[in-house]
Amino acid sequence: MIDLAFDENGLLPAITQDDETGEVLMLAYVTEEAVAKTEETGFAHYYSRSRDELWKKGATSGHVQHVSDIRVDCDGDTLLYLVQQDGGGACHTGYRSCFYRTLSGEVVGEKAFDPEEVY
Amino acid sequence: MIDLAFDENGLLPAITQDDETGEVLMLAYVTEEAVAKTEETGFAHYYSRSRDELWKKGATSGHVQHVSDIRVDCDGDTLLYLVQQDGGGACHTGYRSCFYRTLSGEVVGEKAFDPEEVY
Repeated sequence: MIDLAFDENGLLPAITQDDETGEVLMLAYVTEEAVAKTEETGFAHYYSRSRDELWKKGATSGHVQHVSDIRVDCDGDTLLYLVQQDGGGACHTGYRSCFYRTLSGEVVGEKAFDPEEVY
Repeated sequence: MIDLAFDENGLLPAITQDDETGEVLMLAYVTEEAVAKTEETGFAHYYSRSRDELWKKGATSGHVQHVSDIRVDCDGDTLLYLVQQDGGGACHTGYRSCFYRTLSGEVVGEKAFDPEEVY
């Protein structure tokens, strides 16, 4: 087991990547508890900094993430979750990926669902 | 131009993905200046928190990253650099990706170069 370098708030960034398409879906933060829950259950868990709580992705929307592997970077301070995304999209806006825009604001991502029907 | 939500230290995480293979290569932090330099030059720039300075990836190793696009996430607080990686690998350990290990410590990544010959 690799020692993870959590920051002063007990957090690490976790990148979430679609295991089949390779698409980067989102980035969120994890605590030690979130990583343990992810390993235990096979569903991606994160820590919501705004709500200040452990968060199972898809608990509200049903769009859970099945985690097939967790990778650690060279410094032990970033994780990579490899997942199968239920419901077509990871982003609360309805896009498949949270990274659906370029820096200039052009929308290049694919809409996967209607957020009004899900939330 | 999307307003970026830099944190209290003026930083944002940037994920770096190989534009051709889809492989996630690394995560590093950027300042407003690093993003501007990246856009200006077409080469990935980051901010080194340990050295406390703007950092052109590959300045020492020659393993620069040609940035073809920059994506922004829904909250404007994470970037995704799409790059072509020179020299075969992004990681200072010689692996192609910094995410070359599983959580249990198994090495699953591909060695791309010998770091002793590069640094």
